[in-house]
Amino acid sequence: MPPLLSGGYLRVVLACARRAGLSAGSRGSHGGPGCVRDNPAGSGLLRGELDRFRGITVRLAQLDSLDADSFQRGLQAAVQQWRSEGRIAVWLHIPILQSRFIAPAAALGFRFHHAESDSSTLALWLGEGPSRLPGYATHQVGVAGAVFDENTRKILVVQDRNKLKNMWKFPGGLSEPGEDIGDTAVREVFEETGIESEFRSVLSIRQQHAHPGAFGKSDMYIICRLRPRSLTIRFCQHECLRCEWMALTELASTENATPVTSRAARLLLYGSREGFDKIDLTAEELPAVYTGLFYKLYHRELPDRYKTMAGLD
Amino acid sequence: MPPLLSGGYLRVVLACARRAGLSAGSRGSHGGPGCVRDNPAGSGLLRGELDRFRGITVRLAQLDSLDADSFQRGLQAAVQQWRSEGRIAVWLHIPILQSRFIAPAAALGFRFHHAESDSSTLALWLGEGPSRLPGYATHQVGVAGAVFDENTRKILVVQDRNKLKNMWKFPGGLSEPGEDIGDTAVREVFEETGIESEFRSVLSIRQQHAHPGAFGKSDMYIICRLRPRSLTIRFCQHECLRCEWMALTELASTENATPVTSRAARLLLYGSREGFDKIDLTAEELPAVYTGLFYKLYHRELPDRYKTMAGLD
Repeated sequence: MPPLLSGGYLRVVLACARRAGLSAGSRGSHGGPGCVRDNPAGSGLLRGELDRFRGITVRLAQLDSLDADSFQRGLQAAVQQWRSEGRIAVWLHIPILQSRFIAPAAALGFRFHHAESDSSTLALWLGEGPSRLPGYATHQVGVAGAVFDENTRKILVVQDRNKLKNMWKFPGGLSEPGEDIGDTAVREVFEETGIESEFRSVLSIRQQHAHPGAFGKSDMYIICRLRPRSLTIRFCQHECLRCEWMALTELASTENATPVTSRAARLLLYGSREGFDKIDLTAEELPAVYTGLFYKLYHRELPDRYKTMAGLD
Repeated sequence: MPPLLSGGYLRVVLACARRAGLSAGSRGSHGGPGCVRDNPAGSGLLRGELDRFRGITVRLAQLDSLDADSFQRGLQAAVQQWRSEGRIAVWLHIPILQSRFIAPAAALGFRFHHAESDSSTLALWLGEGPSRLPGYATHQVGVAGAVFDENTRKILVVQDRNKLKNMWKFPGGLSEPGEDIGDTAVREVFEETGIESEFRSVLSIRQQHAHPGAFGKSDMYIICRLRPRSLTIRFCQHECLRCEWMALTELASTENATPVTSRAARLLLYGSREGFDKIDLTAEELPAVYTGLFYKLYHRELPDRYKTMAGLD
C-alpha cells in the first residue's frame, strides 16, 4: 500500500502577493472568468500543514477577499517552494463557495481527489515517478437480509417496483455511512417489509465492478442470515411491488429469482438441513491497533482452543 | 434502497438569457469573484437529460463563453421550470476547468455529490421530504494475502516501514479500481515481497468506520489465503522494514502481531490442521442479471447436489 499522506503539522506561511512575480508566466487562459483585480485586497496567506509522508495540506478557509488570479500566482510560487523543499504532494481543501480557486489550481496540474457536500479536495503529486497518492473510496456496500423462519421454513422475499424484470430477491439496500453490515440488513428489511429481525451471520459477498448503479464505481453486495422477530408484512409501496413469505425450497428452485438470490437460497437450504455452522460467517468485535476504535471481523467460527491457543503449539 | 436517478434521455433546451429575468432576485453574494459581464456572449443552452426516476442531468461541456452570473440566472430559471414539471432532482456534471460554475450552483442549493480527476458532480434534491438521492462510494477495500507454504508450514509476514509500532502483518494494500479481491492480494504480495502466489480463498472480512487512512470513509479489509509459487523474498524497501517466512505456530502465538493478523493466523492454523474447508470461502463467477457482465461471489463451499438442486426438494 502506498504511504498515506496525512497527519503532522507545520505552518508554512507564504505571502502570495510578494511571490507573485515568480510565476506570472503561467497564469492565464484557465484562470476563472477572466476578471483580474489589480489590487488584491486579500493577497492572503497560504498555510500548509506538513505531514509525516512529506506532503503539504492547505485549507482554503479564509480567502474571501482573494481573486482567482492572485491565488493562482501565489499557489504557483508556493508549489515551487514546496518542490524545492522536497515535498512530494500538495492537498488543497476548498469550501464549495470558494470554488473559483479550483480552475486556477487545475491549470497548475491539481486534480480532484474527492468532493462531498460542501467541500472538495484537490491533489498534486510532486514526487518522482507516477503518483503514489492513495485513492478515495472505490466501493459502495449493499446489504441484503435473508430472513428465514425456522418454524415455517419460509423466507422473506420481495420484488422491486422499479425494475424491468420482476425477479424475487431479498430485501436490502445501501449501507449508510458508518453503519455495520448487520445493522444495514436489519434496517433495510424493516424499511422495505415492516418485518423486525436480528442478525445471525454473513452468508456471502459479491464484488462487481463498473456498476451502473454506483456511478461507475464497484459494488460490494453482502447477504446476511437474519432471524425474524415479527411476521406481519407491511411492505413499502414505493420500493416493492410484492413481498411475501415463500417456502425456502420454492425460492431455491424457481427460475424467477436473480442468480445470487438462487445461490443464497440453496446455501440456506443446505444450512437449514445440515446445520447453519456449515454456511455461516460469524461476527466479532475487536480493537483497532492504532486508533483505539473497534471494528467488526467476520470469518468462520473458530473453536475456542484455537482462539486462545490454550494448550496448542 | 432509494431508486437511483439515472438513464433515459430527453433534451430540455433552455435559453438562459431569455429566462434570466425570472430569477434576478437571488443572484449575488456567492456568485464567484464578483465580475459580471454585461454582454454574456455565451448566453448558451442548458441541456437536461431526463431519467426514468424523474431526475434531470445537465453536462456543462460547452459553456466556455458563459460567465458565472449569467449561468446562475439561467440555472435558477431552469430549476424553477424543472420543479414545475415535477422533476425531483438535478445532477450537474462540471469539468474541472469550468469550476467557476460551482459556487453559483451552490448558492442555489446544489452540493457536491462526488468529484474525481477532472470533473465534479453536484446534485440538488427537488422532491418532497429529505433527499432520497443515492450516496457515493463509502468504502475503500484493502486486501491482504496470507501466503502459507504447506511444505514448511511457514507463512509470509512483513513489518511496515511507516508505522509507529513494528507489528507483524500480512502483505497487502488497497485494491485498484476494477480489481477483484484475489487479484489485489496476489499483486500486493508480489509488489511488497517479491513472492509469486495464487489465490485460494477468502478467510475473513473486517469492516471499520471513520477510518483515518480512508479520508474518514469506511474501510473493508479482506484477508485471502494464497499458495506460494515462489519462495525467494525480495521485499520492497520503501514499504517494508522486515519480511520473512515465519512458522505459522509462532505467528499464531506472538504478541507482536496486530489482532486481526493473530486471529487470521489462528484460523489458518485450524484450517491447516483440520482441513482448509473448515475456514475457506470459495470464489465463483456468475452473470449479472441486468448488465450481462460477470461478478465474483464468495461463500462457503456448497455441495453440488445443492448447487444444482438435482434430486432435492
